[in-house]
Amino acid sequence: MISRISILGTGLLGTSVGLALRAAGYKGSIVGWNRSPEQAQLALTMGAIDSVANDPIEAARASQVTVLAVPIFATLDFMEKLAGVLGPDHLVTDVGSTKRLIAESAARLYNMPERAAFLPGHPMAGKERGGAALADANLFRGAMWLFTPASIVSASKLKSAESMEKACAGDVLYQGTTSVVPQEGQNDSRALAPAGVSETAAELMRGWREWVTKMGAKVLDLVPARHDDLVAWVSHLPQFTATALSALLEEEVGNAPELKDVGGRALREMTRLGSSPYSMWRDIAHTNTEAVERALLALEQRLALLRENLRTPELRDEFERANKFRRDQ
Amino acid sequence: MISRISILGTGLLGTSVGLALRAAGYKGSIVGWNRSPEQAQLALTMGAIDSVANDPIEAARASQVTVLAVPIFATLDFMEKLAGVLGPDHLVTDVGSTKRLIAESAARLYNMPERAAFLPGHPMAGKERGGAALADANLFRGAMWLFTPASIVSASKLKSAESMEKACAGDVLYQGTTSVVPQEGQNDSRALAPAGVSETAAELMRGWREWVTKMGAKVLDLVPARHDDLVAWVSHLPQFTATALSALLEEEVGNAPELKDVGGRALREMTRLGSSPYSMWRDIAHTNTEAVERALLALEQRLALLRENLRTPELRDEFERANKFRRDQ
Repeated sequence: MISRISILGTGLLGTSVGLALRAAGYKGSIVGWNRSPEQAQLALTMGAIDSVANDPIEAARASQVTVLAVPIFATLDFMEKLAGVLGPDHLVTDVGSTKRLIAESAARLYNMPERAAFLPGHPMAGKERGGAALADANLFRGAMWLFTPASIVSASKLKSAESMEKACAGDVLYQGTTSVVPQEGQNDSRALAPAGVSETAAELMRGWREWVTKMGAKVLDLVPARHDDLVAWVSHLPQFTATALSALLEEEVGNAPELKDVGGRALREMTRLGSSPYSMWRDIAHTNTEAVERALLALEQRLALLRENLRTPELRDEFERANKFRRDQ
Repeated sequence: MISRISILGTGLLGTSVGLALRAAGYKGSIVGWNRSPEQAQLALTMGAIDSVANDPIEAARASQVTVLAVPIFATLDFMEKLAGVLGPDHLVTDVGSTKRLIAESAARLYNMPERAAFLPGHPMAGKERGGAALADANLFRGAMWLFTPASIVSASKLKSAESMEKACAGDVLYQGTTSVVPQEGQNDSRALAPAGVSETAAELMRGWREWVTKMGAKVLDLVPARHDDLVAWVSHLPQFTATALSALLEEEVGNAPELKDVGGRALREMTRLGSSPYSMWRDIAHTNTEAVERALLALEQRLALLRENLRTPELRDEFERANKFRRDQ
């Protein structure tokens, strides 16, 4: 069972993980590290971690599970550094927003004999601004927590078992909305662990998935490419749309702040994500470029279609498609 | 003082006006009419109106102030019908989302000797769905209520008084965020009424503005063309963007409803307006077509710019412009 966790990066997500673990009843140790020591100190004060580490590598070595909660390129750096120093009974996981590069790095450096295990993860939760101060024990409650485990990749590639094939429809391996944790009494924790992983690491993977569901999240397993494509549509496109809309309106009505009030709730809502800082989105734009380009181009074409049909019956059809999307949610 | 009001159209806005008037302490009568008698009956049950009228024209004749709370083309129809039957001591106002055609109709049919007065209005409040059942006495609290009175048009054209000129910068006559009602003791109710309007109607205009502020709204006066241009940016563009985004996502991920959960709060927020029915937006698309086309084209170009710069420093600049828009709100 998991009793020693290190969280590298105690910003909004890392600190929220610590708080959520405690709220879910986790009794073991949590050591935290952050590039900016003030953020680590704040996480400590908030009760998200028990101690602040000076050396993130040492902190990881002394724990069973290491949670990387830093931007994507920093996650890739840590993966390189940790692969050489952690043993086969260690699990590393992350919370990065794109998974293709991270899963590739995991396949190259982890999940093989004598190496630590790696479980790529992505909680679909956040706020328009980062930082430990905004962390929340309930941040993951009701949210999806996506994983792109190596076992899924090979299952998808091999399509060996018929049930797997069925589940892999559209390259999505959908494991259920509430949990992929085996029923009590079953002992199939290896089922979701890659072949090269130790029994201990497989147990830690099962244990981490269990804590994720105890934090209130719903688990979904996807192959990495499908993950990146999906989040381009349902997460990155909404963000970049809000950014473009906010930037455009800044130029059009930004010189008359009182006029922004005119838009009311609808405008506030459609531009709230415009507050998101570049620092939170730079790595996403760099590591999921093609999928985001496709999604943005599709929206441009969709807006053009709507623009050309403001006075035709096609506008009604477009509203009805939009209505359907919302009805089915 | 106003003591007899008729509300033609007891949908979301009309019924909310009745409820808000009562909540603000209005003690006079409110007669309501709706094309669908069930909606009028519901407004009566909710306490938004005292009685249901069978004939909207007769209801208007028997009142001092008539509030048109129907779609834009229906508003234009009522304006034609009422102009011939209402006298100079009557005020008609409306809540339509575009104002150019309505202000033109008002200039042609109202605000002249022997005719009723007309004050074009537009509360910036609503919900993604209509109907009396969703009406709310607090719908207008903190919202802007825009007017495009005939007096503003001429003031803007004539630029006679220096202070007016100053206030008209950018064709916006900005009258303050809280109220344009004269201070007690002053007797300048005519200041905002068009020249051809009777003393009684000018008093009713002042009185209606007063009730609007008592309902909790902030009043802003604009020339009609500037109004339609402004709302194209801050209201119509956000709506059509949400519709296009929702319709696009319906095609991309609509076949897997569980995947919509992945987007979380950000996706729900950016597509909430996708629920808005075509019936609420058809008249807007038809009566503000050019301004909406301009705004949509500008967003298409903005999204293309962002798409072409996902890996360049321009992305940082775009995020910073978006951040600035939100900071200043």
